[in-house]
Amino acid sequence: MFKAIVSASTLRDALDSVSVLVDECKIRLNEDELAIRAVDPANVGMVDLTLEAAAFESYEADGGVIGVNLNRLEDIAGMANSGDLVQLELDEETRKLHIQIDGLSYTLALIDPDSIRQEPDIPDLDLPAEIVVEGAQIDRGIKAADMVSDHIRLRVDEAEEAFFIEAEGDTDDVDLRLDREDLIDLQSGPADSLFSLDYLKDMNKAIPSDAEVRVELGEEFPVKLHYEFGEGMGQVTYMLAPRIQSD
Amino acid sequence: MFKAIVSASTLRDALDSVSVLVDECKIRLNEDELAIRAVDPANVGMVDLTLEAAAFESYEADGGVIGVNLNRLEDIAGMANSGDLVQLELDEETRKLHIQIDGLSYTLALIDPDSIRQEPDIPDLDLPAEIVVEGAQIDRGIKAADMVSDHIRLRVDEAEEAFFIEAEGDTDDVDLRLDREDLIDLQSGPADSLFSLDYLKDMNKAIPSDAEVRVELGEEFPVKLHYEFGEGMGQVTYMLAPRIQSD
Amino acid sequence: MFKAIVSASTLRDALDSVSVLVDECKIRLNEDELAIRAVDPANVGMVDLTLEAAAFESYEADGGVIGVNLNRLEDIAGMANSGDLVQLELDEETRKLHIQIDGLSYTLALIDPDSIRQEPDIPDLDLPAEIVVEGAQIDRGIKAADMVSDHIRLRVDEAEEAFFIEAEGDTDDVDLRLDREDLIDLQSGPADSLFSLDYLKDMNKAIPSDAEVRVELGEEFPVKLHYEFGEGMGQVTYMLAPRIQSD
Repeated sequence: MFKAIVSASTLRDALDSVSVLVDECKIRLNEDELAIRAVDPANVGMVDLTLEAAAFESYEADGGVIGVNLNRLEDIAGMANSGDLVQLELDEETRKLHIQIDGLSYTLALIDPDSIRQEPDIPDLDLPAEIVVEGAQIDRGIKAADMVSDHIRLRVDEAEEAFFIEAEGDTDDVDLRLDREDLIDLQSGPADSLFSLDYLKDMNKAIPSDAEVRVELGEEFPVKLHYEFGEGMGQVTYMLAPRIQSD
Repeated sequence: MFKAIVSASTLRDALDSVSVLVDECKIRLNEDELAIRAVDPANVGMVDLTLEAAAFESYEADGGVIGVNLNRLEDIAGMANSGDLVQLELDEETRKLHIQIDGLSYTLALIDPDSIRQEPDIPDLDLPAEIVVEGAQIDRGIKAADMVSDHIRLRVDEAEEAFFIEAEGDTDDVDLRLDREDLIDLQSGPADSLFSLDYLKDMNKAIPSDAEVRVELGEEFPVKLHYEFGEGMGQVTYMLAPRIQSD
Repeated sequence: MFKAIVSASTLRDALDSVSVLVDECKIRLNEDELAIRAVDPANVGMVDLTLEAAAFESYEADGGVIGVNLNRLEDIAGMANSGDLVQLELDEETRKLHIQIDGLSYTLALIDPDSIRQEPDIPDLDLPAEIVVEGAQIDRGIKAADMVSDHIRLRVDEAEEAFFIEAEGDTDDVDLRLDREDLIDLQSGPADSLFSLDYLKDMNKAIPSDAEVRVELGEEFPVKLHYEFGEGMGQVTYMLAPRIQSD
């Protein structure tokens, strides 16, 4: 059983954060929250999303799992205006999801969850550094890095108490230096890792520019990016595996 | 003889409503109105447009017929700002149309009207149902239908007193239900027909979202869409042939 | 030695005016101004730009010459908001240009100036007619001409005291007539020349629509277009060679 009403903008934020990594996913319709975990086909990027029951206008669920085509669902949510409410109801018998937006009904065929890639276990990592920064700053660093390279280096300089987003190209280099006063928070620690820019660009697309992003970082370790949406009642964690630094 | 002055926005609305169906058309320069009738090459969609003399700042004509390339004429009208006036004058001798917009002169070579597909006779149909609805609602139904199919079904449910825009895809379905209170007017009657979405999408492009659209509908009959522009002094009728319902 | 701070919008205006003609250029870092001269590969269009030291927040230079990739430099300047300041500093040893924008550092590898096409000498022509006109009017004439031809004719009618922008297509013609009262200034004289529209379209892209453009024109002679940017402290001159009029 699943029956819920949610604002179109909250639904879109939730879907966008997952669709940057995968085309299909399982949605867990838990009693107290909707939850999605997914990993991209190359096993490099993962996402863990929860949207609390309180983020919905109304929410009833009993722990089922459905498989959905994310692009399809995004297209439907895109038919709504930001203020519109979207009504979702699962038809257990036909295995279809009924979606209603102000007189418009959409019947979405679901995907067999068993046919969808297994949900990843996102490991606890206890990373030594933590940076809290505006989404807009991450966007700036990624755009700059993209001018010169397809890799991006994230590091904390403990002596300078600063967070650096860097990229080295064949001839040109880029770095964005964010001092303690440019950041919302900084917990310094040994942290220096290289990442594929493509993945970070995709994740960045889903991060609202005014979101507070909590970055957990280590030395040649995966990075974790955490942010909230839906007035704090939706949480997203991205995890991205590092590239080996060759120098 | 033809000499007229018209606002750029009225001229553009007129041209757009025809250019969604055909590239070239005949324009009848009647004494009291400008009139265009055209049918697409496949004989599926027709348009009948009249723009009253009163819609012009000034209008003088004596019943001639000219053939025009609509894209060319739209490009020229596109050079004007919305408030600008466009001056049109036919040179009978050279068979060219002189177009003036605030210091800018364009000399448009006309097309021999005999080389243009014959104007259609748009039949009187006396269709049993009539729905008056905002252009924005039609736009919504068409966009939703386009997500799942290339056909669209328009029908009136007499018992429920509602107008339905529906589409059936291979796995997903869509329907937009417009009750009497969502409509400007509804004259109920037996009406249920299927149409090619491509044509309706094209026609929809020309319909202003705030226009009142009068829809005449029957059972497996053509649909007629009527709307006005140019402060009510321009009238457009589209007629679209039905597709056979296969079920 | 070169070290300067300039607003991002002034820097972008300067780069845009040159990049419409060439991909790489030499920048002369004179003591009292930054100067660029460049000619397109076909030797048809030339640009001469100066940006006075006063246009900068701060400016120190001693007459060096650097070679730059303009697209690269435009991309970097594009990372700044309009109000942002851009800090430029030449590292003489590494021959790299360090660019800083609010925490973001970009190290740009320079190009050997000797590998860049030689700077043109822009001749003094003493052309008989001079028209001062808003950039928006030139834009209008070019857009209209582009509908019918790939050549454009600029001429002054001495009897009518008007400036004409004209184009002749295979079937259609266009002309924009600008009378003395439509112009900022007109110094009449025998002037009638034909130009390649492609070049003028490119130059037009860089001309702000609210700029005063001073046009120097003769009979089958090059045209010169002058305009200012950076609050009058930047000056651009374009020179475009004529096409032979074939009639």
